This record gives sequence, C-alpha cells and structure tokens, in this order.
Amino acid sequence: MTVEIDGKKKNICVEGIRDRPLPTKKVEIVERKGIGHPDSVSDALAEEVSKALCRMYMKEFGHVLHHNTDETQIAAGQAAPRFGGGCIIDPSYILLVGRATTHIGEEKDYMSLPCKPVALKAARDYLRRTFPFLDIESEVVLDARIGQGSDDLTGVYKASGVHANDTSFGVGYAPYSITDRLVLGTEEYINGKLKNEMKGTGQDVKVMASRIDEEITLTVACAMVDKEIGDKGAYVSAVEELHARAEENALKIIDASGLDVKLRMDVNTGDDYDRGVYYLTCTGMSQEMGDDGSVGRGNRCNGLITPYRPMSMEATSGKNPITHIGKIYNVMSNLIANDIAKSTGPDAEIHVRLLSQIGKPVSEPLNASVQIISEDQAQVAKWRSEAESITFDWLDNIDKVTELIVSGKVRTF
Amino acid sequence: MTVEIDGKKKNICVEGIRDRPLPTKKVEIVERKGIGHPDSVSDALAEEVSKALCRMYMKEFGHVLHHNTDETQIAAGQAAPRFGGGCIIDPSYILLVGRATTHIGEEKDYMSLPCKPVALKAARDYLRRTFPFLDIESEVVLDARIGQGSDDLTGVYKASGVHANDTSFGVGYAPYSITDRLVLGTEEYINGKLKNEMKGTGQDVKVMASRIDEEITLTVACAMVDKEIGDKGAYVSAVEELHARAEENALKIIDASGLDVKLRMDVNTGDDYDRGVYYLTCTGMSQEMGDDGSVGRGNRCNGLITPYRPMSMEATSGKNPITHIGKIYNVMSNLIANDIAKSTGPDAEIHVRLLSQIGKPVSEPLNASVQIISEDQAQVAKWRSEAESITFDWLDNIDKVTELIVSGKVRTF
Amino acid sequence: MTVEIDGKKKNICVEGIRDRPLPTKKVEIVERKGIGHPDSVSDALAEEVSKALCRMYMKEFGHVLHHNTDETQIAAGQAAPRFGGGCIIDPSYILLVGRATTHIGEEKDYMSLPCKPVALKAARDYLRRTFPFLDIESEVVLDARIGQGSDDLTGVYKASGVHANDTSFGVGYAPYSITDRLVLGTEEYINGKLKNEMKGTGQDVKVMASRIDEEITLTVACAMVDKEIGDKGAYVSAVEELHARAEENALKIIDASGLDVKLRMDVNTGDDYDRGVYYLTCTGMSQEMGDDGSVGRGNRCNGLITPYRPMSMEATSGKNPITHIGKIYNVMSNLIANDIAKSTGPDAEIHVRLLSQIGKPVSEPLNASVQIISEDQAQVAKWRSEAESITFDWLDNIDKVTELIVSGKVRTF
Amino acid sequence: MTVEIDGKKKNICVEGIRDRPLPTKKVEIVERKGIGHPDSVSDALAEEVSKALCRMYMKEFGHVLHHNTDETQIAAGQAAPRFGGGCIIDPSYILLVGRATTHIGEEKDYMSLPCKPVALKAARDYLRRTFPFLDIESEVVLDARIGQGSDDLTGVYKASGVHANDTSFGVGYAPYSITDRLVLGTEEYINGKLKNEMKGTGQDVKVMASRIDEEITLTVACAMVDKEIGDKGAYVSAVEELHARAEENALKIIDASGLDVKLRMDVNTGDDYDRGVYYLTCTGMSQEMGDDGSVGRGNRCNGLITPYRPMSMEATSGKNPITHIGKIYNVMSNLIANDIAKSTGPDAEIHVRLLSQIGKPVSEPLNASVQIISEDQAQVAKWRSEAESITFDWLDNIDKVTELIVSGKVRTF
Repeated sequence: MTVEIDGKKKNICVEGIRDRPLPTKKVEIVERKGIGHPDSVSDALAEEVSKALCRMYMKEFGHVLHHNTDETQIAAGQAAPRFGGGCIIDPSYILLVGRATTHIGEEKDYMSLPCKPVALKAARDYLRRTFPFLDIESEVVLDARIGQGSDDLTGVYKASGVHANDTSFGVGYAPYSITDRLVLGTEEYINGKLKNEMKGTGQDVKVMASRIDEEITLTVACAMVDKEIGDKGAYVSAVEELHARAEENALKIIDASGLDVKLRMDVNTGDDYDRGVYYLTCTGMSQEMGDDGSVGRGNRCNGLITPYRPMSMEATSGKNPITHIGKIYNVMSNLIANDIAKSTGPDAEIHVRLLSQIGKPVSEPLNASVQIISEDQAQVAKWRSEAESITFDWLDNIDKVTELIVSGKVRTF
Repeated sequence: MTVEIDGKKKNICVEGIRDRPLPTKKVEIVERKGIGHPDSVSDALAEEVSKALCRMYMKEFGHVLHHNTDETQIAAGQAAPRFGGGCIIDPSYILLVGRATTHIGEEKDYMSLPCKPVALKAARDYLRRTFPFLDIESEVVLDARIGQGSDDLTGVYKASGVHANDTSFGVGYAPYSITDRLVLGTEEYINGKLKNEMKGTGQDVKVMASRIDEEITLTVACAMVDKEIGDKGAYVSAVEELHARAEENALKIIDASGLDVKLRMDVNTGDDYDRGVYYLTCTGMSQEMGDDGSVGRGNRCNGLITPYRPMSMEATSGKNPITHIGKIYNVMSNLIANDIAKSTGPDAEIHVRLLSQIGKPVSEPLNASVQIISEDQAQVAKWRSEAESITFDWLDNIDKVTELIVSGKVRTF
Repeated sequence: MTVEIDGKKKNICVEGIRDRPLPTKKVEIVERKGIGHPDSVSDALAEEVSKALCRMYMKEFGHVLHHNTDETQIAAGQAAPRFGGGCIIDPSYILLVGRATTHIGEEKDYMSLPCKPVALKAARDYLRRTFPFLDIESEVVLDARIGQGSDDLTGVYKASGVHANDTSFGVGYAPYSITDRLVLGTEEYINGKLKNEMKGTGQDVKVMASRIDEEITLTVACAMVDKEIGDKGAYVSAVEELHARAEENALKIIDASGLDVKLRMDVNTGDDYDRGVYYLTCTGMSQEMGDDGSVGRGNRCNGLITPYRPMSMEATSGKNPITHIGKIYNVMSNLIANDIAKSTGPDAEIHVRLLSQIGKPVSEPLNASVQIISEDQAQVAKWRSEAESITFDWLDNIDKVTELIVSGKVRTF
Repeated sequence: MTVEIDGKKKNICVEGIRDRPLPTKKVEIVERKGIGHPDSVSDALAEEVSKALCRMYMKEFGHVLHHNTDETQIAAGQAAPRFGGGCIIDPSYILLVGRATTHIGEEKDYMSLPCKPVALKAARDYLRRTFPFLDIESEVVLDARIGQGSDDLTGVYKASGVHANDTSFGVGYAPYSITDRLVLGTEEYINGKLKNEMKGTGQDVKVMASRIDEEITLTVACAMVDKEIGDKGAYVSAVEELHARAEENALKIIDASGLDVKLRMDVNTGDDYDRGVYYLTCTGMSQEMGDDGSVGRGNRCNGLITPYRPMSMEATSGKNPITHIGKIYNVMSNLIANDIAKSTGPDAEIHVRLLSQIGKPVSEPLNASVQIISEDQAQVAKWRSEAESITFDWLDNIDKVTELIVSGKVRTF
C-alpha cells in the first residue's frame, strides 16, 4: 500500500472495483444550488472572507496565518414582492462566524490585524458585485462573530511541512457524467450568458436532475425579479422564454457529448397561476423571505450534490487553504480524480478519498484511497501505476493546491 | 390660568420669579457632547431614521404615520490606533431600536412599507457623510430591531387634531448665556471651519465649561486622527494649534458679546506625554474603542447639557414629530422661550415647561408654564401678555414645529 | 471659595439664593418610572451587573477593578395579551453593554476573569426575582457586548487616592417636596405592599404629578396582568380597586405631612373601555410589546425626574463606584444636600453640584457648588459653615459613598 | 418501474448491483461527531425546537402546522480552562434560525402562538439536561431569529394527502458494517455508561474509524473537564483509563459480531504533554473556545458520516416531519433499507434513495430507487419482490415515520 518515489513514501492504495460506472447504471440524481441560493451565498461569503484574509496575511507577512471562517449563517428576511416592484420589509441577516489571527508578536513587535473589517469588506464586496438586485446598503444586515487569536510570526506555513489540523478526510470523483454536466451547465447558463438577455431572472437558481436509464428530467427553479416583470402576463412569458432558452442550451450540451439522452425540463413547477402563486422576488434571492442558509449544506467542491457518488460532509468553503484538511483534501481529491480520469477515459469512474492524521504532515495522509470502477478490470492493472504517480505527485505538491484555491482557480461550491 | 384668544382656550400660566438670571449668579456649568461623541451619534442616527421615515410616509400617503425610533445603542469596538495609521480590530456595533408602521390597509389595499431598509439607509448615509475617517463598509456593524406595526390609512395626523401619545412634558429656556454660547460655539468651530485647516482633528469633541463669577474655564477633549498625525511631535503641535485656534475663536465670541469675561481653556487634559498617553484614534470617534453610546443621554434639544437650568429627561431625537410629546414639547418649549426672551432682553431668564395629558390634543397641554426670572418684577407685568400670546400662538400652530423638525431646521441634540 | 479643614483644602462654594423654595412656587412637575418600566429595568440591570462585578473583584483581589457597564438596551418584543392569559410571541431583547477587566497579570500570574458570565448571571437573577410574570427561560433574550480589557493588579483603588476618570459632574437637591414624596410613595406602594393584595397589577407603573398651587394631580399608569384578570369586568374592578387603594395610600402621605394639599388621582387614563382599549399585558411589563428602554433615560438617582429641579444627564446606574464621577458625584450630591437640608429644615431648598477634573483626585472636585435657596437670606449666614463642613466631610470620605453603593444602600434610579 | 398494490401505484425501482458489499472491500472510513460536538449540538437544538413546536401545535389544534427550524448557528466563545477549574470568559452564542406558524385564523378566531418562547424553552431544556458542565444561566447566549408566518386552521396535514414542499431527496443504507457499529458504539459508550464512572470526560467526543482490510483504527478525541481533573498527572491517568475502557467496550462489540477484526485505538492524539498541550475544557464542549457549529454538517440521520456510502446533503434535524422531504425521506430511506437488509442478511448492501416532486403527495415519490449490492445477483431476483413490498408499505404509511420522529424514536443525527 506504500508508494515510494525518489525515496519518499506515501500511503497510497489504488483499488480496482469491478462494476459499471455510474452513467451506465439505471438511476442517477444530481443537484446544484445556484449562486443565489442561501446555502451557496453562505459558502461564497465564507470563502471570500478566507481569501481576503489570506491576501492580507500574505501582504503583511509573506505567508498565511491561522484562520478558519467556514461558518456563515443567513437568516431569511421578509419581503413583499409585487409585479413591477415591491419592497423588502425586513432585511436578511448574515452572520459571519469563525476565527482568525488578530495579534502577533510581543512587546514592541506586537501588531494588531484588522480581521473583522477585512472580513466584512470582502463579504460586502462579493454581495455587491454578484447580486445586482440586492441593495447591500439597506436590504441586508451583515454581522460578524469572528473569534480573535494570536500567533507567532512563523505562521502555519513552515519549510518543515504543514501539519494537519484535524483527523478528517476529503472525497472526490471523476469524470462528470452527462447528468452532472447538464446540471452544472444549466445553472451556469442561467446565471451567466442568459443574464444579458433576460434581466428578470434572479440568481437563486436550483437545478435537480433525475436520470432513469437514458431519460433525464431537469427540474429548474429560478427566482424571478419583480421590478423587471410588470405583470402576470410578463411573468408567464418570462418563464416560457427561460424554459426555451435553458432547454436549447441543455440540448447543445447533449449534442456535444454525442450521447443518446432524452431530455425533459420543468421550470418553476411550484407555480400555480390559477391560485396566483408565482416564484416572484424583489432581489432574485429567496433569502429575502423564507429561506435560510448556511455553509456546507449545499454543493460539494465540484459544484454538485451527488447522492449516487461518494461525498464528504466537510465544508470546503471558508477554511484556510494551508492546514485545513476539510478543504485541501476535498479539493485535491477532485484534482487527483480528474487527472486519473483523463488517463482512463469514460469507461472508468474514479473515486478518491484522502484521510489525514492530526499532527502529521498534510502531504502524508494516513490513507490515500483511489478506486477505479470499471467492468474491465484488466485495464485497471495498466492504469494503476499512472494513478499512483498522479496521486503521489499531487500529495507532493500541496502548495499548488493552496495556490489554486487562493487565486480562485478552483471552485469550492 | 386660562388664556383665551378668538374663543380658543389654553391653560397657560405665566409666572414672575424674583431672582437674578443665571448669567449673573456665581456658578454655572455647561457641557456639549460633539457630533462624534457616541451619545450624539446615537441621537443623530435616531433622528435621521425618524426623518427618513417621515419623508417616506409623506411621499406615499401625504402625511406621517406612527413611528418611534428614539433608541439607538452603540457598543464600542476595538481599535489599535498608531501614529501614521493604525487599524480597527473589532467594528463598533450600532443597533437601531424602535417601531414603525410597516403595513397599512386591508385585502387588496394592503400595502407593505420598507421601514427597516429606509432606517438602515438613512443611518448609513448619515455616518458616511459625517465621519470621513470611518469606513462604514467595514468598521461598523449596523443592525436594527425596529418592531413592525400596522395602521389605518388615516395616519396620526387628522384634521380633528393630533392627540398626545403620553403623559409627558417638554422643557426649554432662553436666552443662551455667554457660557452656553462659548460651549456651543467651540464645538461647532472645531467640527466646522477648523476641519478645513486641521484634518487631524476628529469629530468626537467634548466641551465642558465651568463659570465662577466672570471666569470661564473651557475644557476641550478632541479625538485626534492617527493617519493624519505622523508622530508624537506632530501630535503635540496639532494639539497646540487646536488650542490656539479654538481659543482665538472663543475670544471672538466673547468680544462680540461685549461682556467682561475671563477665559481659560484646557485641551486634551487626559494626555500624559511622559507616559505615552495620547487621545489618538483611527476614526476620530471614541466609539471605536471603549466608549459606548445611546440616545437621550447627551445634549438636550438646545444642543447643551445645563445642570443649572431646567432640563427634560425625554430624548428629543428619534421620536415622531406629530404625536410625541417628548419631542414636540421639548422643541416648542425652546421656541417659545426664545421668542419671549427676544421681548424681554437679557435682563430676564425664561423657563418654559409644557405638560401633556395622554389622549388630549397636543395643542392643548394640561399646563403650559412660563417663568420669567428677573430681579425687576415690575417689568414682568408688562411682559406677561406678550408671553401669553407667544405661547398661545405656538400651541395654536403645532404644524410649524413639525415642519421645522422634519425639514431639519431645528436641532434635536 | 476654598474651605480648609485640618490642613486639607477643598474648593467648596456655598451660595445663598434669595428665592422661594420650589414647594411654595406655583407649579411643579415630578415623574417616576416604576421598576417595571423598560428604562428602569435597564438601569437596574446595569447596576446589578456593576455590583456583581464589584463583588467578584473584591472576592478575588480585595478591591474593585476597572469596569463601566452603564449601558443596557432593551428592544421591545411582541405579545398577545388576552383576559385569562395570552402569550408572548416574540421575546424582548436585552443587550448588556459596557467594558470590564477580564485579564490581569503577566505570564504565570496571568489570570482570566469570567466577566460576561458574571454579568449575565446577575442580570438573569435580578429579572427572576423581580418580575414574577416574566418567564426568563423563554420570554426574554439576554445578550451582552461587554468589551474586555486588562489591568494590573493594583486596580483603580490606591492608597494615594482615586482619580476622576472624566471631566463630569453630579447634581443633587433636598429636601423632597410633598409632590416628590407622593410620586415616590405611590410607585413604591403599588410595587410593594399592594402586590400581596392585588396580584393583577404588574411592575410597569409610571407616576406623573403636576402641582399647581396646592392642587396635585397624580396620573398613574399601571400595566395589568392578563392571567390574573379573567375578563373585562374583572379589569374594571381591578383598576377601581387600584385607584381606591393608591389614593388611600397617597392621602396618608399627605396627612402625615401636615400640609394642606388637594389631591386628584387618575389611573390608566389611556384606557377606553368602549373601544376595547385596556392596559393589559402578559408580564406586567410594557417591554413585552412596544416599549423600548435604555439606561439613564429615566429616574435620577433620587428616584425621580424633576424638571423644576437641577438634574444631571449622567446615568448613575452601572458605572463603577470608585472612579466614575457620573456615579459618585450624583450619589454624593444627594447625600450632601440631604444632610444640609436636615440642618436648614423645610424653609430652604438645597442644590448641590460637584464638578470633577479628569485626572485629579475624586475627593478634590474642581468645584463643589452648594446653593441655599431661601427667602430668609439672613439665615444663610448661619447655615453656611455647617453646609461647608458637611460638604467637606463627604468629600473627605468618598469610601463611604462607594460602600453605600456596593452594598445597595442607596438607590441609583 | 411502477409497483401496484391494491390498486395503488408507486414508482419503485429495485435494481441489483453486482458488487461486493462495502464491508468486504479494502477501505472504509466512518466518523461520528458525539452529542457535545458543536455540529451535533446544533442538530439537536434544531430537532428539539421542531419537536416542541409539533407538540404545541398538536396540543392546540390536533395536528402539526407549518414550520422549518433546520438551522442553528453556534459561534464559539472564549474559555480559560485550568486544571482544577478555570472559567468561561466569553459565552458561546447560539442562534436558532427558521420559521414557524405564529398566527392562525381571522378576525375573532385570530390566534397568536408563542413559537419563539417555545423554541427557546426547548433549546434551554435540552442544554440543561444534556450538558452538566455548562451553566446555561451564564455560559451561553441563546438567541432566535425565527420568522413568523400565518396559516389557515387546516394546517399542512390533510386527509387528501400531504404534499412535498420541495424537489429534494432522501438517502439511506443498511446494514451497519462492523466499522459503523464500532464508531457508533464507542461514542455512545463514552457519552453513556462511562459517564457514571469517569466524570472528567466531557460530551464533545469525536470518533473516526479507518478500516483497511481487517484492520480498524479508531481515533477518539474526547474533551476533558478541568474541574474534575486536578493536575497533569490526573489528566494522563484519565486519558489512559478512558483509552482502556473504550477499547474494552470496542472489543466486546467485535466479539459479539463474530468477525475477525484487528483493532487499534488512539485517544486524544492532538495532546502533546511535553509542550503542555491537553484537550482540557471547562464545559466538556469545544464550542466554549474555538469550535463553531451548525446544523447538517455532521452526522447523517443514521448517526454517522460515511464517505464510502451514499449520503444526502439534506439536514434531517429541525425540519417539520410532515411535509419536509429532506427529513421524512432521509429517515424513511434508512427505515426501508434496514427492513430490506433484515431479509437479505449481511451478504447484501442496501441503498435507498427517494426523490420527491414539489407539490406531489409525499407518499408518491417521483422515484424510489432501491439498490441491492451483492455478488450473488441470483439472490436479487428472490429479494426483489420483498424489497418492493417493504418500500411500498413504508411509502403507504408516511404517518408512521412522522410518529417515530415526533416521539423521538428515531435519531436524526
């Protein structure tokens, strides 16, 4: 189980599992909570706060100091949406929670750091640039309970190697199935390109897919924005247009895949026009009324919720990207799985699970478990050594993971 | 005790008191908490919130609806000021408290109103335009607990007359003594004209005057701003310049009065340069560290705290200017006293106290008590009828008081 | 102006004012907010917190350490009172605000102190033992923002003398007028003896007196408790009984005074039985719905609000009783005034105002001003030296004031 | 895919998967956060609040009204633990979040409900009876942001069938592996029987298991309680005793299973006696310092975190047990899986996933997917119809699930 390269040893265990990869099985369920869903807003704020703290620490000291801001609670407000433009009655409440290094040094080298202001600023900036229909001056109350701590100047990042802060694990898989890609692609389309053409669509978009054999049902819920939609007729038209465009986009994804998949899409199925029920909001975000949110309850760090795949309960967003296993191992598991999947192609499904030991170097997990699920186990023998060396390589280059995270090049939700 | 004019009767009692006016007595103490003092910040926010609600109600309905936002609590933050520029570690926390009409009408006329957003916006706007060294994005947490209520469309303002919401009273006096004018004029100078010339002076300015006979001691405490002051030497110079300029301004006030008064001024007497104690702040506001604040604990509505004068305990700031006796009667008492004082000149001191009865029209106090304090009681007979008619007139024109308040033409703290 | 005794000098200024004492003047207004009024609840909690901290510090170190907990904000909840027993929908929110010494010593002598837990415990205990109809488990949310600081072991209490923490003043007067005594006596009766006989009366009692010549109108507002009052009839009877008993009690006070005073009493005048308006509550406290509260906005430290008397704006409750001028000088002014009034008898009115200088010993005010208001100024010459020595004596025994406060032997609201 | 029984049709899909059940695979990771872990405290409070609301609604109306209280945020406090007994400096902060029906009926049938008080009471009661070392009077601040809503009297529970509130899913598996049972049994032992014998062990216990082939490593972290442990020696002894007893208990579980498993156990591996690092707390809960918590980030509703098994991201705790798919389908998936596993025995692993459609009856999922994982697929044919009828039966008896939840007979975390 030990892989040794250039004299370095790591506990890597590559295992072949004789089974069909998920995309060829009968049933699959995949979900994505869009960027405006309160759980995703929480994830994003936690991550923005951590990234801003990282930048501050690196600017002041050249390396990241201890912090962990992986909790954010959103308590819904109260709104009175109305065709043509209603109003927020009670702002939603956002509480940033965590801890950070606020003091370092002794006596005359003693130095204080503005962690809470940095956190609040980062959160406010994110909300402002991401949610055009939310007035952050008045429609949200932003508070922080970020515990303060002190640290010595050496920080958590030492030449001697960074040590795991906890006994924890990370989980990843690859490649994305067509169901995965449809879910991800649909949300990204609605919150991306479509926004230029349809202003009335809010950011709170939830996509759920259920595949049975070759038939995929995509259920899309999209908060519509009252001030952009003048009346019921306009609402009905907007939902129809959204439906048509999102379906067209999904069909393109299917076409590009070359797979033979039947698509069915439902949009805003909770609506009931006869009874006057519309998914109408003032801000395009359901946290304005009735929907609370918190970190780590939505998408895993590959952007999806996949009950037919292995998942970690650890919140990836908001943890520091140096010592926090719950973050690094989750991100790295996906990176490893993706790289291995590139070798194996679509005939295999890759599961990666990394388990840490508290106090041991992050680069030396107690157990790096790679599963290659394929009906053709003969192939596994060929893939094994490639898989081992990919895994070894990522473990030996933890810094690259940290850099990818801090620079925002990998998603965390 | 009843004054009748054009068939209208009001309980007005004008009383002569044979005594010397305060300015000729031996001792006088006067204090003003400047606009950056946490109690004044609280007063201002409460009043800004009320004014913004008034404007919203008037825009939507043509008249003001019930509200009372006369409480704001500021809990100090934590700061690490440093010559040249330190940082805020923990933002101060501001909680707006009160109640407002958030819903009116029934069924299809039912309408929701954005009271909390309006309140938060007003508070944020005030902080932004008043305190240039406070980053309201990150150095303050602004929260609101404004209870919601409903109202019928008629509002509180009816042709039949507005009724007192409480058994309460208002108190005022006039004219200002030279001590009063020095205290007021010194704070206004430091937070006004001087700002163009001395950026290093913050808004938290406290002026205390003690007069014994003709000698007035002015004690000034002014928070200095770290980012504008590079080192200890610059601090010492800045305080000296502040002292010189404020003294010059005070002497001008004395000269203009034609009175024979000796002035002594002390500035930042809490400093102790040898022990390294400076009144240095990041934001020019002591609420950044160690100084909490709340509404109604500072200046009365003439801008001063005057323990040798009659005072009301009722907070003037934040109450609605239609039915709230604690606001209208305080403001009106001062207006009446000032008008009477214009007639009597400096030889008399005027005290006005208005007592309401809950449920009775605001224009008909249980008791409007006017005291004319003068050694020359022969004069009082002459002044009496003028005093009565001035008082009657203001009571008969409550609307004018409301307008002066809503338009910001009278101060409330 | 300097009084010297046994070689010690103090700035004491006793001044005769030729005027009638207030009780013989035409008009007088006096108010008391009872112990259940939200402003009084705030005062009490602030003071309880301070006393509990004093006890903790004295137990651990033998003397009091720095603290100042003179702010508490109560934001009203929401209630649905109903004859026979309604319910609280939204608890009132109580925020304790201030700062305290949480850390002392260095290195191995470093010691942490449980200030916030002590504060929360003290507040909870007070609410529990004072308000029998409030379920503190569920009908109130108690929070604290008490800033933490460190101190050296010597504390604020040194043999060399305690120094004023601020440029501030205290104000007191004596003796109580019959109006004062009626107001105080009525609230104390309703919240005292009467409780055994009339369970339906809550603690939120407000008494307002207006005297014109010899006629005193007492307006009493008393929150009634729904679970003790079965229906409208019972309510009407209860208010009538309250009226009768309170009036009887007031007449006894008048009789005992030997003064010729006419009394009129109104109880719960805001009620309107025809329109179904009753002053009915679930908890006997108006903070359950619609009435916010904070420290220092209600009674002065003699238990009254007296716009015809000199008053201090400084909140007495919650400040530390060692260095905080706003507390010690307010309490001491009243003690001095009372002692002098015992000498002069009812023919004189005594006003005392003590002004501190920041950094100077508390025992040496910048100015201790005593005014003896009497028409018989010949007497003043006789009283003067007694007044000076009483004042000197209290200033020379600050410790006695502190002891009286910590042991709860003087009121602060 | 449709199963029809007695004329009722349900979409049930039983699928055989030719694979080894997990216990026979090479690697397995299982974790449990004990009842004192902040994520579990959050889960428990959310669930206690929901159960208390259910009881209140059932008492008042005979059925449960709409509510969803599945969010709770714990922000860590600050503590200074010390052998023999330290102190809490800053209480932890617990915010209950969600919404509930606070008003029903119209006009004279209008009725208010004390949801927040009921929630606060339930939370306080749970903390008091579960955590003997936490003084809930002073060492925790409990707040609630529970949005209020109105409902008609019929509630959510109608004869015509309850409808899904969301497009969501539930996931379960069975049977427990030996690794599962060791993790669950170890935490339950330490927080159960052991407490009578070892008072120094706190409730914050975390158990992580890693199985590789037949070797299971159990890593136990248990917060120790300072006031029960006099010094370092006592701490070392206590951890040794804990280790010995927990190991003995684990070996009994293994013995009872008849399986050939090698056990290794590590306890409090984060300690470093040389550097003076101990897992010492004042309250036995790490939320006192440094560890935040929230709902749905810890154990799934079978009490475990199992990255090698299918899991749902939906928080089970705190949701209403009538309409909330995230709760009912998670609990029911486990019930179904367990019942099927009783038929199949240990040679098969059962995965159940239930997917709802918003607005459709809860009893009619869009898709009830049952997977029978076994190398002996011949058997699957035999098990299939039993699996279908078990699944059908549970779906047809949703009420039983609700009853099990409300009566606390199934766990949610």
